[in-house]
Amino acid sequence: MADSTSYVLVTGGAGYIGSHTVLELLKEGYNILVVDNMSNSTKGTKDLPESLHRVLQLVGGNKKILFYELDLLDEEALRNIFKKHKIQYVIHCAAKKAVGESMEQPLLYYRINIMGTLNLLHVMEEFKVNNFIFSSSTTVYGAPEKLPMEETQPVGRSIANPYGRTKYTVEMILKDIFASTEHLKRDYPRTWPFDKNQIIDWNMVILRYFNPIGAHESGQIGENPLGPPNCLVPYATQVAIGKRDELKVFGDDYETHDGTGVRDYIHVVDLAVGHVAALKKLDEKCGFKVYNLGTGNGYSVLDVIKSLEKACGKKLKYSIVGRRSGDIAAAYCDPGLAERELGWKAVRDLDKMCEDHWRWQAQNPNGYEV
Amino acid sequence: MADSTSYVLVTGGAGYIGSHTVLELLKEGYNILVVDNMSNSTKGTKDLPESLHRVLQLVGGNKKILFYELDLLDEEALRNIFKKHKIQYVIHCAAKKAVGESMEQPLLYYRINIMGTLNLLHVMEEFKVNNFIFSSSTTVYGAPEKLPMEETQPVGRSIANPYGRTKYTVEMILKDIFASTEHLKRDYPRTWPFDKNQIIDWNMVILRYFNPIGAHESGQIGENPLGPPNCLVPYATQVAIGKRDELKVFGDDYETHDGTGVRDYIHVVDLAVGHVAALKKLDEKCGFKVYNLGTGNGYSVLDVIKSLEKACGKKLKYSIVGRRSGDIAAAYCDPGLAERELGWKAVRDLDKMCEDHWRWQAQNPNGYEV
Repeated sequence: MADSTSYVLVTGGAGYIGSHTVLELLKEGYNILVVDNMSNSTKGTKDLPESLHRVLQLVGGNKKILFYELDLLDEEALRNIFKKHKIQYVIHCAAKKAVGESMEQPLLYYRINIMGTLNLLHVMEEFKVNNFIFSSSTTVYGAPEKLPMEETQPVGRSIANPYGRTKYTVEMILKDIFASTEHLKRDYPRTWPFDKNQIIDWNMVILRYFNPIGAHESGQIGENPLGPPNCLVPYATQVAIGKRDELKVFGDDYETHDGTGVRDYIHVVDLAVGHVAALKKLDEKCGFKVYNLGTGNGYSVLDVIKSLEKACGKKLKYSIVGRRSGDIAAAYCDPGLAERELGWKAVRDLDKMCEDHWRWQAQNPNGYEV
Repeated sequence: MADSTSYVLVTGGAGYIGSHTVLELLKEGYNILVVDNMSNSTKGTKDLPESLHRVLQLVGGNKKILFYELDLLDEEALRNIFKKHKIQYVIHCAAKKAVGESMEQPLLYYRINIMGTLNLLHVMEEFKVNNFIFSSSTTVYGAPEKLPMEETQPVGRSIANPYGRTKYTVEMILKDIFASTEHLKRDYPRTWPFDKNQIIDWNMVILRYFNPIGAHESGQIGENPLGPPNCLVPYATQVAIGKRDELKVFGDDYETHDGTGVRDYIHVVDLAVGHVAALKKLDEKCGFKVYNLGTGNGYSVLDVIKSLEKACGKKLKYSIVGRRSGDIAAAYCDPGLAERELGWKAVRDLDKMCEDHWRWQAQNPNGYEV
């Protein structure tokens, strides 16, 4: 249970998934501390990022969010926050996430995503904060062995890009850190100074997100990519409002029901609710857990376009172009483990995702920029 | 070609492999700059680590080594060295390397081995230093698919410990950075500020060491583990001089010629000469290359014990104990690619390795401590 004087630290909490997660956590009564380097978020005119300002409006009452503009590469600044505030849980959403950019700037991705995480874990160890939730991704499965994808499938093979490899690397690191507790508890002559009090009983939940889209149904918060969006739905809704010319569909010759790529889209609010469920799992002293967060349904690019057209009431201009290297035909998960162990299930369908995404985009043609 | 005013930076240059490599480089006329955090080396009484002081004595003449005590986690200090000195090549030997310790302190290993490397690469990019040699390890192959191991075997699967995973992760990072140059050269609309002058044509050589043992034949420099050694030969020679009671042989029921584990031992001087060959390869603008450095011969634990007994003229006390988790039966490489492309071949046999290792240990029962 959260104690009333302690905080849930949400890194990257001003971002798309972070802000929706913060909203759900506030509704559940948690105290929230957000750190974000604002590299992909809008500052707004208040002392909070615009996304979090709107989160407070949505949640109402006299709720507060503690916010620090901070890059996780700055370990000393991070340490100061742990000194100043009692942190009980960490939800680590902060990361660079653009696949194409990661191929051009891999060092940046490895630095932000891996060094950032290593600094965070290092400071958590120092302050004995042992509850950790990590934003991982379907990308760690690489080319899936079979569908639907279960958590027990091998990870780390044939991952198509550096972004994916950063997620996989962090998963390896977490697994090793969790396992080290058992090694440390063994009575064994050591070559290095060792203090048994340093042993931490970690609780770690890795959440492998499938393809988050949608927005809070108020239309007040949503995904706000700075620059051209990298993903289908944000790009498509920008086409719909006339901000982009046309949508490119990468390949229609895959072995799927209509030839276009199939993915497991999940409503960002379902995803956010999944984080709350994961946080409660930590309270059970859950040890090391990995859950897919998806609906278990595979929709093709053309399915999504149809649903979006229904939502926005107009035709979307698109053209079929060649396959994009590294893309796979189809990926969708078996979400059963999360249902059994977290009591969580995605409940919003594709039409709802598209309606909500569209509402956000239509009401905020320039995202959070006002 | 090395220009006469520029340096080869050897990280971890005070260590076992580093110091032997520095000696061979000095003999070839390179200017050497060493950084080392001295976490596993002896300071000695001079302004140089004791190992490098002895290297200078061995090489004779009026050779110099520039030395900085520095941890690669301190990026700013590293940057200052690049500011101050013209660096043309980097040989990156600095790393934590004890398998058992890595299982107990994975975060330390990921920080030193990965963050250290990321900082180094970041500063290299900044100063456009594009020649890089990385100390990797046979451990990246995990459980080898077949023997002898060729460089084309898959890596990253079933690696038994965090140490090995840090080496694998750095290999991934290097491969991605190398590949990014091609991505950057494509004419493609970008979402981030991009300056074509920032593109670096990297030359990278990954050296996968097999099992380095032995010492310079003078007996003046060698492996000096602080604390109980983690590897067979250093431990065995400490048994021979009476510093340790007996040697433990982990398992005699493997499918090998005598049931004990088989490895590809390589003389550290051969290994050091391999680094010089790799450095010359960089001058050919070699791009991204990976080479096994081993002899191609597999020797069992009992073979090594016999050879060591011959070298030191006495019986070694040992006992057979159970297998060590994560150990594999046999690993030896095909060193053919290094011979074909680097013109390098290990020439010192197991007896020579054991003689030289013994000479070092017998002459320096306390390593570099005087």
